[in-house]
Amino acid sequence: MTAKVLDVVGIGNAIVDILSHADEAFLAAHGMSKGTMTLIDAERASALYRAMGPGVESSGGSAGNTIAGLASLGGKGGFIGKVNNDQFGGVFRHDIRAAGVTFETPPSEDGPPTARCLIFVTADAQRTMQTYLGACLELGPEDIDPAVISHAKVTYLEGYLWDPPQAKKAFIKAAEIARKAGRKVALTLSDPFCVDRHRAEFQDLVSRHVDILFANEAEICSLWEVDSFDEALQATRGKCEIAALTRSAKGSLIVTADETQVIDAAPVKHVVDTTGAGDLYAAGFLYGYTNGKNLFDSGRIGAIAAAEIISHFGARPQTPLTELLLAELR
Amino acid sequence: MTAKVLDVVGIGNAIVDILSHADEAFLAAHGMSKGTMTLIDAERASALYRAMGPGVESSGGSAGNTIAGLASLGGKGGFIGKVNNDQFGGVFRHDIRAAGVTFETPPSEDGPPTARCLIFVTADAQRTMQTYLGACLELGPEDIDPAVISHAKVTYLEGYLWDPPQAKKAFIKAAEIARKAGRKVALTLSDPFCVDRHRAEFQDLVSRHVDILFANEAEICSLWEVDSFDEALQATRGKCEIAALTRSAKGSLIVTADETQVIDAAPVKHVVDTTGAGDLYAAGFLYGYTNGKNLFDSGRIGAIAAAEIISHFGARPQTPLTELLLAELR
Repeated sequence: MTAKVLDVVGIGNAIVDILSHADEAFLAAHGMSKGTMTLIDAERASALYRAMGPGVESSGGSAGNTIAGLASLGGKGGFIGKVNNDQFGGVFRHDIRAAGVTFETPPSEDGPPTARCLIFVTADAQRTMQTYLGACLELGPEDIDPAVISHAKVTYLEGYLWDPPQAKKAFIKAAEIARKAGRKVALTLSDPFCVDRHRAEFQDLVSRHVDILFANEAEICSLWEVDSFDEALQATRGKCEIAALTRSAKGSLIVTADETQVIDAAPVKHVVDTTGAGDLYAAGFLYGYTNGKNLFDSGRIGAIAAAEIISHFGARPQTPLTELLLAELR
Repeated sequence: MTAKVLDVVGIGNAIVDILSHADEAFLAAHGMSKGTMTLIDAERASALYRAMGPGVESSGGSAGNTIAGLASLGGKGGFIGKVNNDQFGGVFRHDIRAAGVTFETPPSEDGPPTARCLIFVTADAQRTMQTYLGACLELGPEDIDPAVISHAKVTYLEGYLWDPPQAKKAFIKAAEIARKAGRKVALTLSDPFCVDRHRAEFQDLVSRHVDILFANEAEICSLWEVDSFDEALQATRGKCEIAALTRSAKGSLIVTADETQVIDAAPVKHVVDTTGAGDLYAAGFLYGYTNGKNLFDSGRIGAIAAAEIISHFGARPQTPLTELLLAELR
C-alpha cells in the first residue's frame, strides 16, 4: 500500500469524553483539582461515573481533537491510537473517520475497554478531567506504520502519551522515522502535571527531537521550572525551531530563534467550555503551517479554531471550520 | 419492597441518541423523510452510521426524555424500559438515574444491543430520526412491577412502544393496573407515521383507557383522519379527560369536555434543534398536573421546558429546569 501524503499524523490516546456540568463543591468532595487532568483507575472511574450527573458522550483525546480540527479546516490528517473493539471504540473510530481523518490502528480484541475521560465543566467554563486510559495502554511500536509517518509533513505527539509506557516507545519510534524522512516533529506538553511527571524526558525531547512545540503558560513554566512567562519564553527560545505558546484570553506567541510573533485571541461572545482550546489552537496552527501560511497567519487560524471550540460544550468542532475561516479571514 | 410514591412513571423505548448535523441532500440521498421517525434494522443502522458525520451521544427515548425532564423540574419520576447490558446500556442507565429517576428494569444479558436513534439535524433545526430498536424488543409484561405502577399518580406511555410487539403487552398490563389503582393513564402519540401504523388501536385506547393525551398537530389529524386542526380538536373533545395538543411556534391547547385553554409558546432566541420538544412539553405539563397546578399553568410549564430543549443540541435538559422555572414564573 502506498501511503497518502498527509499534512499531519497525530499519535495520541484514543478517548471517548463524557461531559457533564458540575459545581465547585462536587470537585472538592471528590478531591479534584480544577482545570487539570488526572489519571484514574477502573475502580475510581466507575465510582466517579456513578456520582456524575447526566452526560454527553463525544470522541476526544488531545491529539484526536487536533487532527479532527485539522480535517475540519480542510487539512489532510491521520491518527494513530488504540481503542478496544467495544461500543465506545466504535464511536471513536466512527467519529474520527467521519471527520475525514485516516485511522487504521487495529483495535485491541481483549484487555481493558476503550479509554474514557470524565470531564466536569464548572460554571466558569473550566474543565476538570479524570482519565481512565484503558485500551490506550495497549498502543505499542508495532502500531506505527513507517510509511504513514514518513509521508506526513508533521508528526504530532501528545505529551499525555508519555503516561502509558508502551505508547512512549511508539512515540519515539515515530519521532525517529519522521526525522529520518526529513519531516517535522511536533509535541504538545498537554498538562502541567504531565510535565511534572516527565520533566527530564520532555526537556531532552524538546532539545533533541522536537521541531514545533505547543504549550500553554503553566506547561512551559513547569517545563523549565521558572515562575514567570517571560523567563519561560527566554528559556524556550532556540531550543526548538518553533514554539507556539498559548495564554488563554491573552492570545499566543510564536517564538523562533530570532523572532517573536504576538497573536491576539479571537473574540468569543460567551465562553461555555474550555475543553479542547489548546487542541484546536494546535489544529489551526498546523493547518496553516503545513499549507504554506506564515507563522503569524498560522497562529491566527489557531486562535480562530480555539474560539469556536470554547463557544460550545465539547472538544470537537460543531461548525465546519473551513466556513468559519473563510468568514473570519474575509 | 414498598414502592415510593411517584408523580409519573414512564414506559418507553430505552434509546441512546446519536446526533449529527446533516444537510437536505444527505437526507434525500439516504431516502429519509425530514422531521419523521423511521424504524430501521441492524444492517441499515450500520450503513447509515458509516455515512453519518461525527456524532454526539446522549440518552434519549421519548418517554425517557419526558421523565428526565420531569425530574429536572423537581418531580419524582420512574422509568421502565429495556437496555442490553452493554456500554450504551450503561450510558442510558447512568444518565436517567443521574437525573434522579428511579430505573430498575433489568437489562437483557444477551440478544440485540441497546437501541440507538440516529438523529440528523438540518440547518432549519428539524430532526430526522432513524431508530434501531435492538434490546427494546425484549421489554415484556414481566418488566411491569404492579407496585410501581399503582403508586404513581400518572403512568405515561409512549406511542412508539406500540411497535415492539411484546412491549405493547407490557403497556396494556401497566394501563390496566393504573386504572384499577385509581391512577391516571397518559399517552403520547409520538409520531404521525406511528399513528398510521396503529390507528385503530390508538383510537380505541384513547377512548377507553387514556385520561391524558399528548399529540401534535400532525399526530392528532392522523389519529382522526381529518385535514384540519379544528376538526381534530372537535374530534378529540370528550374522548379523554384531557388532551394537550401542541402546535410548535403556535403554542398549545389544553382541551377538556367543557373548556379549552390556549397557551402561547415560550420565546426562544434561536431554535437550534427541535429534538425532544414534545417530550419536554409533556414533562412540564405532567409536572404541573401532578403537583397541584391548574391546566393553564401546567401547559405554561410545558411550554417553558420545551423552549429550553429546542435552544440547544440534544433532547435532555442542559439547565436545571427548576431554576429556569423560578426565573420564568417570577
